[in-house]
Amino acid sequence: MAGERVEELKLLGTWSSPFVIRVKLALRLKGLSYENIEEEDLYHNKSELLLKSNPVHKQVPVLIHNGKSVCESQLIVQYIDEAFSADHHGPSFLPADPYDRAMARFWAAYIDDKLLASACQAGRATTEQEKAEALKQTSAAVETLEDAFKQCSKGKPFFGGDSVGYLDIVLAGLIPLDYIGEAFYGIKLFYHTRSPLLEAWMQRFQVLDAAKDILPDVDKMVAEHNKRKQARAAAAKATSN
Amino acid sequence: MAGERVEELKLLGTWSSPFVIRVKLALRLKGLSYENIEEEDLYHNKSELLLKSNPVHKQVPVLIHNGKSVCESQLIVQYIDEAFSADHHGPSFLPADPYDRAMARFWAAYIDDKLLASACQAGRATTEQEKAEALKQTSAAVETLEDAFKQCSKGKPFFGGDSVGYLDIVLAGLIPLDYIGEAFYGIKLFYHTRSPLLEAWMQRFQVLDAAKDILPDVDKMVAEHNKRKQARAAAAKATSN
Repeated sequence: MAGERVEELKLLGTWSSPFVIRVKLALRLKGLSYENIEEEDLYHNKSELLLKSNPVHKQVPVLIHNGKSVCESQLIVQYIDEAFSADHHGPSFLPADPYDRAMARFWAAYIDDKLLASACQAGRATTEQEKAEALKQTSAAVETLEDAFKQCSKGKPFFGGDSVGYLDIVLAGLIPLDYIGEAFYGIKLFYHTRSPLLEAWMQRFQVLDAAKDILPDVDKMVAEHNKRKQARAAAAKATSN
Repeated sequence: MAGERVEELKLLGTWSSPFVIRVKLALRLKGLSYENIEEEDLYHNKSELLLKSNPVHKQVPVLIHNGKSVCESQLIVQYIDEAFSADHHGPSFLPADPYDRAMARFWAAYIDDKLLASACQAGRATTEQEKAEALKQTSAAVETLEDAFKQCSKGKPFFGGDSVGYLDIVLAGLIPLDYIGEAFYGIKLFYHTRSPLLEAWMQRFQVLDAAKDILPDVDKMVAEHNKRKQARAAAAKATSN
């Protein structure tokens, strides 16, 4: 990991989590080095360090900065932006204007509460009807976000304008879901007829150095998703027996 | 409403909403005048202005500042803090230190996602078992928040230290739930054996001029809650017939 080590930074995470990917992108964009600590078994055996560092939610990611823990991916990205705001860390992720900042936070919450929530529901659906309903909601959320891109980017390449900003980082955590959507449902999350601007945004984002360093490999991501699907199916079968 | 009118500010809300109360407190603490626009029938007949100002969630509160709409109570309070940061508007709601800011945002999210969610679930419960489970979760959330108060206030009277800060405003929106808890369930939200620090915090908060101006009258709040309970019961009965 390139970048100067100015502080002691540790990141507790799992490589495939959209939330953890956000934090890794933020650290990489600020040029910060950190110790990456992978949670080996988040579902059955959480580490002592995780339980101690995030006693309230017991979830990844957790950023430990000089011994102090910060939790929740969106809050960690805002924390990184505020704690490492000196010029040599590059431009701020959040816009300078208070109204633009409020909009960025509004759409970031929308990404988790509507888009990610419905996409995950589609992944967990146990009936065709449930899956169809969740995919419909996912589609509606993508369309709404396509309008948000117009509003926030103001004709520039990223939500943040000419450079990557807060919303770009938050949404980029979901790029791996685009791979999964295509592999498992035959529907990409961002496809050109539904969201041409977001599809073009994703193409632009993926070729950035930070994205190439951080975003997980497509095949590895698809294999991991497949493994989890099988584990869920086996658990459901065991329960019904 | 005291305070100089420096900008055009309109607030769309309903008087009994915890979310709207937060925004009113924030505006009052910054000494800002605004036009208060009460939504007359949020459940059956939302106003055109609300639908136009918050097309995504169609919910109150919405703050319209010089024609631009900001939605979601926590984001509005942060917006007010950032847009009106000049000295004559008083101290910032959010702390200056990035770690303390992250903690304030973390606990603010906890208040909505855990405490308010479980308290509302208790209010809507249709069986005794469901109500008991929701009240247990509410109790656990209050206890966790009691520890958060210790952490954030650092021995001072408010979450924000010597003066009211972001978390004080966010939690104060829930003070009317304390009245309702006592009137309907015989359990205050913040009572001395469960959360002595939060009970003392509430007493201190309620005697502030801003709180006296903004927090709704106890009897009016209890009557409103009773009216809603009866409406829900009538609707449930009509559905089951």
